[in-house]
Amino acid sequence: MAREPKVSLIPLGGLGEIGKNMMVVKYGENILVIDSGLMFPEEDLLGIDMVIPDITYLLENKNLVRGIVLTHGHEDHIGALPYVLKELNVPVYGTKLTLGILGGKLREQHMLDSVKLNCVKPRDVVQIGPFKIEFIRVSHSIPDAVALAIETPVGVIVHTGDFKIDQTPVDGEVIDFHRLAQWGEKGVLALLSDSTNVERPGYTMSERVVGQTFDETFRQASERIIVATFASNVHRLQQAITTAHRYNRKVAVVGRSMVNVVSIACELGYLNVPDGLLVELDEAAKLPRNRIVYLTTGSQGEPMSALTRMASRDHRQVEIMPGDTIIISATPIPGNEKLVSRVIDQLFKQGANVIYEAVSGIHVSGHPSQEELKLMINLVKPKFFMPVHGECRMLIKHAQLAREMGIPESNIFVGENGQVVEISRRSGRFAGRVTSGRVLVDGLGVGDVGNIVLRDRRQLSQDGILIVVVTMSRDTGLIVSGPDIVSRGFVYVRESEQLMEQAKAKVKQALEKCSSKKISEWASIKSQVRDDLSRFLFDKTRRRPMILPIIMEV
Amino acid sequence: MAREPKVSLIPLGGLGEIGKNMMVVKYGENILVIDSGLMFPEEDLLGIDMVIPDITYLLENKNLVRGIVLTHGHEDHIGALPYVLKELNVPVYGTKLTLGILGGKLREQHMLDSVKLNCVKPRDVVQIGPFKIEFIRVSHSIPDAVALAIETPVGVIVHTGDFKIDQTPVDGEVIDFHRLAQWGEKGVLALLSDSTNVERPGYTMSERVVGQTFDETFRQASERIIVATFASNVHRLQQAITTAHRYNRKVAVVGRSMVNVVSIACELGYLNVPDGLLVELDEAAKLPRNRIVYLTTGSQGEPMSALTRMASRDHRQVEIMPGDTIIISATPIPGNEKLVSRVIDQLFKQGANVIYEAVSGIHVSGHPSQEELKLMINLVKPKFFMPVHGECRMLIKHAQLAREMGIPESNIFVGENGQVVEISRRSGRFAGRVTSGRVLVDGLGVGDVGNIVLRDRRQLSQDGILIVVVTMSRDTGLIVSGPDIVSRGFVYVRESEQLMEQAKAKVKQALEKCSSKKISEWASIKSQVRDDLSRFLFDKTRRRPMILPIIMEV
Repeated sequence: MAREPKVSLIPLGGLGEIGKNMMVVKYGENILVIDSGLMFPEEDLLGIDMVIPDITYLLENKNLVRGIVLTHGHEDHIGALPYVLKELNVPVYGTKLTLGILGGKLREQHMLDSVKLNCVKPRDVVQIGPFKIEFIRVSHSIPDAVALAIETPVGVIVHTGDFKIDQTPVDGEVIDFHRLAQWGEKGVLALLSDSTNVERPGYTMSERVVGQTFDETFRQASERIIVATFASNVHRLQQAITTAHRYNRKVAVVGRSMVNVVSIACELGYLNVPDGLLVELDEAAKLPRNRIVYLTTGSQGEPMSALTRMASRDHRQVEIMPGDTIIISATPIPGNEKLVSRVIDQLFKQGANVIYEAVSGIHVSGHPSQEELKLMINLVKPKFFMPVHGECRMLIKHAQLAREMGIPESNIFVGENGQVVEISRRSGRFAGRVTSGRVLVDGLGVGDVGNIVLRDRRQLSQDGILIVVVTMSRDTGLIVSGPDIVSRGFVYVRESEQLMEQAKAKVKQALEKCSSKKISEWASIKSQVRDDLSRFLFDKTRRRPMILPIIMEV
Repeated sequence: MAREPKVSLIPLGGLGEIGKNMMVVKYGENILVIDSGLMFPEEDLLGIDMVIPDITYLLENKNLVRGIVLTHGHEDHIGALPYVLKELNVPVYGTKLTLGILGGKLREQHMLDSVKLNCVKPRDVVQIGPFKIEFIRVSHSIPDAVALAIETPVGVIVHTGDFKIDQTPVDGEVIDFHRLAQWGEKGVLALLSDSTNVERPGYTMSERVVGQTFDETFRQASERIIVATFASNVHRLQQAITTAHRYNRKVAVVGRSMVNVVSIACELGYLNVPDGLLVELDEAAKLPRNRIVYLTTGSQGEPMSALTRMASRDHRQVEIMPGDTIIISATPIPGNEKLVSRVIDQLFKQGANVIYEAVSGIHVSGHPSQEELKLMINLVKPKFFMPVHGECRMLIKHAQLAREMGIPESNIFVGENGQVVEISRRSGRFAGRVTSGRVLVDGLGVGDVGNIVLRDRRQLSQDGILIVVVTMSRDTGLIVSGPDIVSRGFVYVRESEQLMEQAKAKVKQALEKCSSKKISEWASIKSQVRDDLSRFLFDKTRRRPMILPIIMEV
């Protein structure tokens, strides 16, 4: 170890992107991992189910990894754990609800018994290797979220996790200003802070605002009410349930993840439901329309979700009726705007009254706006600052904000995934890179889909494929059978028989060209066929389907 | 014709969607067409270049079509004309700039000479069959936009086209309140009005607001300025040019469509550029950084656009430099949010200062908000009302707004594409449907890509394809060669040789099963292979690639 003790901050995910959050803290021969999230694929990742961080660096340093601490139970913070823990079985630390949700995932993977889960409470302190970690309560769009104060021999590192400063939280559990203040007073070496909403001035509204909107809406609704929101937003579910109770309505839960979360949250005591308020879907159907509220998934217009299926009239148990009031208590995650507005449109078509985005107070963010970010910096008073959890522009704006608050430029590190930040008591610097990146999960395959496969999928998705099959004699090199052409995703064959005939002729010509030129290796024959045919098709159609020549020898 | 004269309003596009606007007005044996727009494909239309209205109905009534009138020069109002006019050569009426832009398209298609273009001015009146049409100036995000007052024997129909009420337009040409008021006074049978922004309360800001924002930004910018906006927003270009001149900067134009529009607009006198202000890109490169403004396309993050290429460092002539001020003077069209934010991120990464959405006054809409819509209804005082140009929820909200203003429910028609609205002097009703829908344009193919092709592209894009080829003897029915398996877009073959070997074995088994069962028709052999293999692959990978068995006979 160097004469002057140093601690390294190594982001493996979540910088320059929203999702797959994973931060590594390294001191000497000890590694601590903060969160292991997944990211939902962008539309150019065709057929991919999810994206997880590349943990090559952790696997190369397997014996140094002392544990994984979790800040909260959102997918982008715990979703990769089932994959990570398969290759790296280390103790995991998190709060009750976080581990409750994680437990569900591990059970599905039959991994629950093989993993050491350690449950902690806010203000608990655990020693992991040389790291002494205190869990500090914060507000977020899921209960039981915590920030971390990590004592290292070099100094204290505060990681906010995802947070907001809700002065009137639904459960009354205000962010722990006092511990943050005490750490700030003692002296904090580095602050790593949530950048998601840095573009928003002012304060993020309190979750209670949504409760008020629910109250007004429920009061006015004369028929059924359907509330769609994120399953994990337990406080929001609580407010819907409380409001339903107030207006003498029963509650039915729709959608797999919603059912899961409600049962876990009830079981662990995060959701407080009056006896007999929850009813099954079949009971709900029998109730008078002004006596029921449905809680459902699908606030993002996810194609398979309950609300989307209701909207497109193919949900088995719940059918939209004219007069229904549908509350979409969420804003579309970037990329989902189209999906959501399509669902809203279909709901309107069926005569429902849909309350969404446009209406203020129907949703509030779980992340801090500028004034909250400033307050965090002023409370913690860090020497060094590293914006995390955000796309590049957000990290840059968060850094500007820190500079405006007096943190010297040289002490601010706008990093990238894989880029090592090395900090001593006196100074910090970028210190090289480690392997990092994204691993694509497609079905059971983890990382078996690479750029070549994606490039092929992209080409296939644009203009389809033509397969040219011909059987040739090994000895004479003459055509024995074919050429046949089969196409998929290219043109309506029925309407294009002529084109296909011409294409076959082209292939014949190409093959004859080869035999006349005495070209006999299949490879060059194939490329001849490919080139001639693709040129012909482009002239005729302005399309570039994938062309796959297959030569069978007999 | 019925005893009581009737006029029919038949939307062929633009209702329940944003794009491919086309409205048909039919009186007796006479058809008038308003606009012929295209729509850019949504991401589920894989490989499709554009979508145009299905004009089967017009072709079935070819001899009745008297002409096409255009409200303005945006793609979603004129983009389908090159296709429509190929099949339906009727006179076209539009204002100077509208026809100027259309002319460019027709020239590319070598159609310019074969089409009868009739240039009109606001307040001009033209007689087309039994229709007497007055063109009425409105404000919009492109100059020379008009509404239409169509006199029919049944009554006057006012079609707003796309409009906003800009009290301080850049060119000083205020919407023609007076003609609208006079028509309202005379009595209007039906109003068809733009629903795009019905969800927005209040008024849409004046285009001049953007000019003020440009001024502030230009004043503060110490290095190069790059302004990205819609090429067709000539008033916005004018303001950028005027501001550049004010701050003693030259202007260089980047991007094909931007170059086209600027030259057309200058030529026709819609853009007023001080001599010597415009410079070529190579000159621009030589100027001091605080002496140049670039006007560029790409405000929607279009992958091939100039700004996107600059952002990803592969634009040949313009390279982003730290200190550049980049103004994205547009808001993302729904569906483009991700693309735009990716571009913004890349620009930030390169040290540019990007001004976008978040900053108010950097863009204003070209469509009317609620107060403007109310003003239009109050001015025109129609007996019947039909919201147009919007998605379903917008049409419904626009109808609610009209109801609140006293138009009786029975006189309001929220229609769908293809749904006929029949109006007499006294009453109106839905009167059946005509063929309507979308025609997909892919390369040179118009309508040759249907649902089967799209379904195949979708499957190919998700899990790729496996082609199984085997040569069998015609007489013995035994395998002569193969089976071979080729895959694309499925898995990285190098990493999955074993899987492929197992797959081959599966195919062999399937074939043997068939011969033992004495199954000899290729069809059933193929389906046997397909079923067995797909089951095997799903178990192994949880993926469902397309499987294409090809049997060659020798």
